[in-house]
Amino acid sequence: MGFPHITRGQDLGSAICDTIRSNRVELMDGDVLVVTHKVVSIAEDAVREEGQVQVSERAKKIAACNGMDPVKVEVALRDSVEVLRETPVLITRIRSGLITDYSGVDRSNAPPGCLVLLPTDPDQSARRIQERLKQEFNRDVAVIVSDTQGRPWRRGAVNLAIGVSGMSPFTVNAGRTDLYGRTLKSSLVCIADELSSAAELLTGQADEGIPVVLIRGVRVAKGETGASGIIRPMSENLFR
Amino acid sequence: MGFPHITRGQDLGSAICDTIRSNRVELMDGDVLVVTHKVVSIAEDAVREEGQVQVSERAKKIAACNGMDPVKVEVALRDSVEVLRETPVLITRIRSGLITDYSGVDRSNAPPGCLVLLPTDPDQSARRIQERLKQEFNRDVAVIVSDTQGRPWRRGAVNLAIGVSGMSPFTVNAGRTDLYGRTLKSSLVCIADELSSAAELLTGQADEGIPVVLIRGVRVAKGETGASGIIRPMSENLFR
Repeated sequence: MGFPHITRGQDLGSAICDTIRSNRVELMDGDVLVVTHKVVSIAEDAVREEGQVQVSERAKKIAACNGMDPVKVEVALRDSVEVLRETPVLITRIRSGLITDYSGVDRSNAPPGCLVLLPTDPDQSARRIQERLKQEFNRDVAVIVSDTQGRPWRRGAVNLAIGVSGMSPFTVNAGRTDLYGRTLKSSLVCIADELSSAAELLTGQADEGIPVVLIRGVRVAKGETGASGIIRPMSENLFR
Repeated sequence: MGFPHITRGQDLGSAICDTIRSNRVELMDGDVLVVTHKVVSIAEDAVREEGQVQVSERAKKIAACNGMDPVKVEVALRDSVEVLRETPVLITRIRSGLITDYSGVDRSNAPPGCLVLLPTDPDQSARRIQERLKQEFNRDVAVIVSDTQGRPWRRGAVNLAIGVSGMSPFTVNAGRTDLYGRTLKSSLVCIADELSSAAELLTGQADEGIPVVLIRGVRVAKGETGASGIIRPMSENLFR
């Protein structure tokens, strides 16, 4: 059975648990659930009604330069804590530390007349779902909240982890050996991003109606870093 | 049966075909084969023997600043067509247009005493394997050559497509409709990178010995862009 339509303020954890039950899916320890942020944001009411947004002069100017809708620019500006670049693409840092274009504000699959923001604290969003699954099914399942984002020098967006709970976002290969028995000195893989990308193959971007993907059989490490640990501190950022 | 050990100059296409046969895998039209670049590079002899590398003063200087092996820096400099940054990480552009750290030069799973480079023309490498599979099995299989690369502002590397043949690297969602029937104006997903990331969950980075992953059931579009079409032209690069 398909996933229910999520409306503003709805209990997403219940909707996920109900869908798992109604599909007779038996959760297992070590399963990873990837949830697209769109349903998380809508359930958390991280949306703005377009009709109620007062557009500033600054937003109008940026929108005109970028060929972008001024309301979207205004909402993006208000949701940012730092503007890194205004044109030709508005690049901002939002409260969770994430640097993204237009603060991740998006209209696709938004409730009618609304723009959807990114969740205020995606790691906490992931944690809430993870704890709910533990409570309901008594299984240690990891949860990733994902968003499809562009990259500065590669064309096309890919789905990335913006919230992580119940697993480390990383696989640490340093200390392991290669085929020749040499010890790897450094190899840190962001498995949370890779799992998100794998999930996008099913969720899609349009009317697929699949906002949650269950991944089984992948070895993830324990860890409490959250997705905020994926974001490089500004001191490491080579392109600032 | 496992994948054979690939040595310098070996025929990789034959090794892949033999492994498919010996495992009684029936290829299907639309299958996607992700091949880690390491076996491609070794088969194409894109390796440098460390003992034969004369290290320049410039490489010594960069290596000292970055805490990096001078031989690796020298090989990386020689394989680059442009140096974008020397410290704290050497960032170069290589012949295929790819911008990466240390030109993608790597020691893990390299033949003893050698450093492995990226393939000279990874799109052509992918094409050769794809054509060989067509010839042997008469199936239209897409081939991706992948490399695990770091990102400028996200910690941890992810596996990306550096060579693509037999499919478009992108899924174009523009023109499709969302759950509310609204037409998506822009949504370009780099499915080749997402498939590469999905494959890394199996290939790993250490002594897994799984350099080839077969992905079935994913809808990819036809297209001849190759992975070179993923690289943003410098005019689009916001962080130059």
